[in-house]
Amino acid sequence: MIPAKAIACPDSASPLGPIAIERLDPGPRDVVIDIQYCGICHSDLHVGKNELGRTRYPFVPGHEIVGVVASVGADVTRHKVGDRVGVGCMVDSDRTCHECRRGEEQFCANMVGTYGGIDKAGRPTMGGYSDKIVVDEHFVLRIPEALSMAEAAPLLCAGITTWSPLKTWEAGPGKKVGVVGLGGLGHMAVKLAAALGAEVTVLSTSDRKKADALAMGAHDFLITTDAEAMKAAAMRFDLIINTVSAPADVNRLIQLLARDGTMVMLGLAAEPLPVFSLALLSRRRRLAGSPIGGIRETQEMLDFCAEHGIASDIEVIRPDQINEAWARIEKSDVRYRFVIDMAGL
Amino acid sequence: MIPAKAIACPDSASPLGPIAIERLDPGPRDVVIDIQYCGICHSDLHVGKNELGRTRYPFVPGHEIVGVVASVGADVTRHKVGDRVGVGCMVDSDRTCHECRRGEEQFCANMVGTYGGIDKAGRPTMGGYSDKIVVDEHFVLRIPEALSMAEAAPLLCAGITTWSPLKTWEAGPGKKVGVVGLGGLGHMAVKLAAALGAEVTVLSTSDRKKADALAMGAHDFLITTDAEAMKAAAMRFDLIINTVSAPADVNRLIQLLARDGTMVMLGLAAEPLPVFSLALLSRRRRLAGSPIGGIRETQEMLDFCAEHGIASDIEVIRPDQINEAWARIEKSDVRYRFVIDMAGL
Repeated sequence: MIPAKAIACPDSASPLGPIAIERLDPGPRDVVIDIQYCGICHSDLHVGKNELGRTRYPFVPGHEIVGVVASVGADVTRHKVGDRVGVGCMVDSDRTCHECRRGEEQFCANMVGTYGGIDKAGRPTMGGYSDKIVVDEHFVLRIPEALSMAEAAPLLCAGITTWSPLKTWEAGPGKKVGVVGLGGLGHMAVKLAAALGAEVTVLSTSDRKKADALAMGAHDFLITTDAEAMKAAAMRFDLIINTVSAPADVNRLIQLLARDGTMVMLGLAAEPLPVFSLALLSRRRRLAGSPIGGIRETQEMLDFCAEHGIASDIEVIRPDQINEAWARIEKSDVRYRFVIDMAGL
Repeated sequence: MIPAKAIACPDSASPLGPIAIERLDPGPRDVVIDIQYCGICHSDLHVGKNELGRTRYPFVPGHEIVGVVASVGADVTRHKVGDRVGVGCMVDSDRTCHECRRGEEQFCANMVGTYGGIDKAGRPTMGGYSDKIVVDEHFVLRIPEALSMAEAAPLLCAGITTWSPLKTWEAGPGKKVGVVGLGGLGHMAVKLAAALGAEVTVLSTSDRKKADALAMGAHDFLITTDAEAMKAAAMRFDLIINTVSAPADVNRLIQLLARDGTMVMLGLAAEPLPVFSLALLSRRRRLAGSPIGGIRETQEMLDFCAEHGIASDIEVIRPDQINEAWARIEKSDVRYRFVIDMAGL
């Protein structure tokens, strides 16, 4: 075992605090990574607070991990000591099933989450709020030199989670894309969709973030509480990336879809979405959901970001600021992603 | 004006009865049709009973119309006297908008329904429970010789409404298609999907119609109240054509979709569908709706039916049996479509 430092939730209600953990000894295909930064995803809070009811404690969150390769197993060919690398939401899968073979490990029935999964020794996997992690080389991404390490961290979850549906539903020139909510996911969706050539509109409940949205590449800003503006935007979007998933808004947003348009939900709503079939039928519209993306697609996204000068807008915190950061996330008070600097751990 | 006989709802609650109406004098592009048969669609009942709150009385239902051309206007080129023809759910549209130009008149903002619309004289359009109708030649379909007139009538709505999503979502060899509900729409979906080469499973609440489903070309039959069978069918279908639209079933059915699978709702539910976003997200599934189809697509469907020996399973009634037929439809007691023989009008 390799001793490591981490930040953990001791239970569903107590503050996070430092903890000593042990990483598995690396096998021949494993990469040992010295973690430099880890982004804070809203999912960290959901699982930390046991909102899905399956969390095992102590729980170490974090799946937006960047760092440097400290050592590699004998059979590792894709990475070498000193490489700048990243790890996202997955650390393993069976590699043999249909989904793995087509490069979408996120759909593998045996996919192992960076946290919330079970490792090869039968222990709960521990995430990236830590100074070290050991991961199979297949799940280790290259961080291009052009990207800042801290700003690249959120690409590993927020980046790929928005990139994947933008590619699946073919955002690009001539397509009108709406992005609901300008948070960690939303701000990446805006940057990526704009760089892909789509015409991007941010949909938000107020104009507080309008200047930011336009600076990120959005072409327009629509206030969803403005009934007149919403009416004028009927049938406007080919694709809506919905990062908010508020059940009350779903039908109003569907009305903004063009014929054959799709609204993709990226967030998990605890309540069901009350969808009126008429709104779907009348324009052959579609409501969809999308999880993260595969490893190949994640690398493509990282390379695209490097090429287009795209990164996350971040606020770097020390490890001892973690509870304050979580509290601020609960109030949507972050522009636009917290990243923990592990140097202080 | 051309005098015509019809069957009408005098108001939302009284029985249907005979009525004398007047069809508009035909213009140069119009076709006058002697109606032979008209299918009974469930929508006839919804509108007849004013369930959408917009019905104008007396109301003449019927949009599954077949007959013979009695006369044509001077500029008509596509049809001639004596031709076997059909009219579906649309009798006009603006013909100039983007949707019309791409052949999907059903999405034209100025589309005129066969009933429930407004004609060129500002009167409510009157449907096919009648002995005559006058329609712009563009909205008049050719009924291939290989099809029985009576059995072809339901193709004009039930046929195209199921054909269009099967084509849009590419049902064919290698695709697994589920059809929820074996009624007027469902039985056409089974026949068409099977003829397109898909592997078809009927999903129903009981096995009452199993023998019929298999005879129509279904390869399998799944009883939706059988929890074990439903569990075993998880992630099985690429496409589900849902003709029932029961809100309570929507999440259980979404679980039957494969990764990237789509469930298409064809019916209008008054209640919202309570969709859990997790079920969509986990497998990148889609929930969609689809209305009828365009005129070009309707003709393709009719030609496909002629080529593959497909028609509706019907029960022919006399005009004076209309109230009994409507009552039986309310109880889902029809295998699988009533068709009125207008010879008795």
